[in-house]
Amino acid sequence: MRMYDIIARKRDGRELTSPEIEFFVEGYTRGNIPDYQASALLMAVFINGMNERETADLTMAMARSGEQVDLSGIEGIKVDKHSTGGVGDTTTLVLMPLVSSCGVPMAKMSGRGLGHTGGTIDKLESIPGFRTELTMEEFISNVNRIKAAIMGQTYNIAPADGKLYALRDVTATIESIPLIASSIMSKKIAAGADAILLDVKVGSGAFMKDLKGGEELAKSMVKIGNNLGRKTVAFITDMNQPLGSSVGNSLEVREAIMTLKGRGSEALREICLSFGAHMLVMAGIARDTAAARSILEGNLNSGKALAKMKEIIETQGGNPHVVDNPDLLPLSREIVEFKAPKTGYIQRIEAEYIGKAALYLGAGREKKGDRVDPSVGLVLKKRLGDRVEQGETIADIYVNGGKGLKEAINILEMALHISEGKPDSLPPLIYKTIEN
Amino acid sequence: MRMYDIIARKRDGRELTSPEIEFFVEGYTRGNIPDYQASALLMAVFINGMNERETADLTMAMARSGEQVDLSGIEGIKVDKHSTGGVGDTTTLVLMPLVSSCGVPMAKMSGRGLGHTGGTIDKLESIPGFRTELTMEEFISNVNRIKAAIMGQTYNIAPADGKLYALRDVTATIESIPLIASSIMSKKIAAGADAILLDVKVGSGAFMKDLKGGEELAKSMVKIGNNLGRKTVAFITDMNQPLGSSVGNSLEVREAIMTLKGRGSEALREICLSFGAHMLVMAGIARDTAAARSILEGNLNSGKALAKMKEIIETQGGNPHVVDNPDLLPLSREIVEFKAPKTGYIQRIEAEYIGKAALYLGAGREKKGDRVDPSVGLVLKKRLGDRVEQGETIADIYVNGGKGLKEAINILEMALHISEGKPDSLPPLIYKTIEN
Repeated sequence: MRMYDIIARKRDGRELTSPEIEFFVEGYTRGNIPDYQASALLMAVFINGMNERETADLTMAMARSGEQVDLSGIEGIKVDKHSTGGVGDTTTLVLMPLVSSCGVPMAKMSGRGLGHTGGTIDKLESIPGFRTELTMEEFISNVNRIKAAIMGQTYNIAPADGKLYALRDVTATIESIPLIASSIMSKKIAAGADAILLDVKVGSGAFMKDLKGGEELAKSMVKIGNNLGRKTVAFITDMNQPLGSSVGNSLEVREAIMTLKGRGSEALREICLSFGAHMLVMAGIARDTAAARSILEGNLNSGKALAKMKEIIETQGGNPHVVDNPDLLPLSREIVEFKAPKTGYIQRIEAEYIGKAALYLGAGREKKGDRVDPSVGLVLKKRLGDRVEQGETIADIYVNGGKGLKEAINILEMALHISEGKPDSLPPLIYKTIEN
Repeated sequence: MRMYDIIARKRDGRELTSPEIEFFVEGYTRGNIPDYQASALLMAVFINGMNERETADLTMAMARSGEQVDLSGIEGIKVDKHSTGGVGDTTTLVLMPLVSSCGVPMAKMSGRGLGHTGGTIDKLESIPGFRTELTMEEFISNVNRIKAAIMGQTYNIAPADGKLYALRDVTATIESIPLIASSIMSKKIAAGADAILLDVKVGSGAFMKDLKGGEELAKSMVKIGNNLGRKTVAFITDMNQPLGSSVGNSLEVREAIMTLKGRGSEALREICLSFGAHMLVMAGIARDTAAARSILEGNLNSGKALAKMKEIIETQGGNPHVVDNPDLLPLSREIVEFKAPKTGYIQRIEAEYIGKAALYLGAGREKKGDRVDPSVGLVLKKRLGDRVEQGETIADIYVNGGKGLKEAINILEMALHISEGKPDSLPPLIYKTIEN
């Protein structure tokens, strides 16, 4: 088999065989196929596409390119949730205790944040003492004992994907549905999930800006999952504004705790109930989503989900009292109010800019290895369609020593569009659910 | 300007601007743009194409990437001939003395052979003493004095093309009309031609296997030339059999001499008269091709063209007596007859295989730097459509010490298809002439 022929075949719009895809992924990972041949093939794939079978093969080849996590030591059906990345997306912090409190094993491996979207590991590390570096034995034993554990990604998961992504990033071949879909799914499959719930975000703060692209991506990933024997459900959700009202590490932990107490963001609560219901069904805990939802609501109202949060924190070495008293979480020394420059309605929010404002304050990292400040960020007081009076506070800016404040204010001014008239319509929280 | 954006633009099927094309070619030649970005762009160009303006810009950018030969010291209009490469194509060896004997300056820079097609420089070097390494001063002074000179390519002509071609060769992006057309034309323009005659060969021994592709390529090159102010004419000629009957260096020189004496290949003579007529018109020596043709025929019949051949050889240090006595040219020690395995008609010839047979005998080189044996090769006794009797000699194989003989015979058996019936039709010598 020659890489040249594989490139020529895809160049001519033909289908690649399973061994051809395997040959490419393995050869590229091992360094036997040079970057310039890989990038020629990626461009041919970008333009000519890949069918369902090719995309599933590419996913499996990338999943097999490195270590594959063995979660068979955990009892029950492991359902993983993956988000394509958004701003103020605190879902995992609420879902993990909520769903595990219902008996679903939540064995979560998670990454750190990069760019304008936050990472769950960074958020949890704002809890004093919380350890995200677990051994595999600890991780599995914790899940078996309390049904939930979360650890940072330490395995060499799908190195082919990492290498290909870096190449795509500099050769204008990122925005290809089969390439994005296989990239995401290869990591989920290598991480050992039995079933997968995907949150494909669309809108101003998401990678996918429009519904059409999001739907295409969601369908492609659901097909890959189902073709590879992993029950997969995708939600297409709105990211035209931050999901919760908080953006920043300790601020989001606080919001998650408030949501588990029934006093947090409505949107966040609703998303978690919808996702959680499907996860309970996929895990075989509930017959249908209606039944599942009532179990979840019960555990929210009874405080069982909140108690689970406390148990998770304690088990991983964190200070459990933050659940009772969120003021124990690190908070910035200064809070600056961002005020409405005029009276009107919040017409549009550039959610990506909100993420970038938090980045300037120190809440995120521009490149791998940057340190994050757990205590800074933003809390929005208004959502899309809300009325504001000139001079009214739209957001609280949590800032340390003035770092990034000027930039954050400038960005917020660009991010929040206020108009005289009420917007005609507001985006739904969930656009669609795709199950096959 | 960023290479990323240039790739993305062509990926999306959009037109590249002149500065973008310049940026790419210059950056790649200097090593500022890595191979993997260049190959992604080349694949996008392969699939999405380039329009006339982009192709002309690419040609000029590549022509400007290295040295540009200044032929302004030569009086008259310099017409260059270029062939896309064939087997037994001795055209230049006949055209150069023929056309220059009519007063057209022939300042020819030529390359060495590679693969199954021969190089004019290799052929001329089979003449004892013939020097192809001239200084630029010698070259120009020879042309001004005797109207003809030929030298090997020593200049750093269009290095961007060389670098891009090597990359295309390993990334399946060779067979793209705009890329082939600009590659050829960039070298002709950098070599200082005022007007260009192109011989685009199609058929079993040519790079372009079919007429449609050849026509597309010819049209693209004529447009480039005319857009860049170089009068350009393209012929589409047949390469379903070797043009002359000889394949091999000294054998082709001998055939050229015989043709100048009126006793050579009919096909070769006809092609040279047709090409020569257009060259005389382009150089302003004749009013139209009919008038030009009668001048050329006159110089062939009178021996003026043959005398010019002798003069060129003598001027460049070669033994001029080879013209009177071609047996002074090196010839192999053995001649082996290749006989018809059955009675019938020559139905089809794989001309590329004929070139490869000569390669095995030592007449060509598989990779740059290989030494060629000037004395070996093949002389075909039959052409397409000819009747052969079983056991009749179809070809003489000129071989030294048995080197490559077995392989050559095997290849000839595959190359020559004999069938019972006479072929329905024979390919014309010239399919088309394209002038704009």
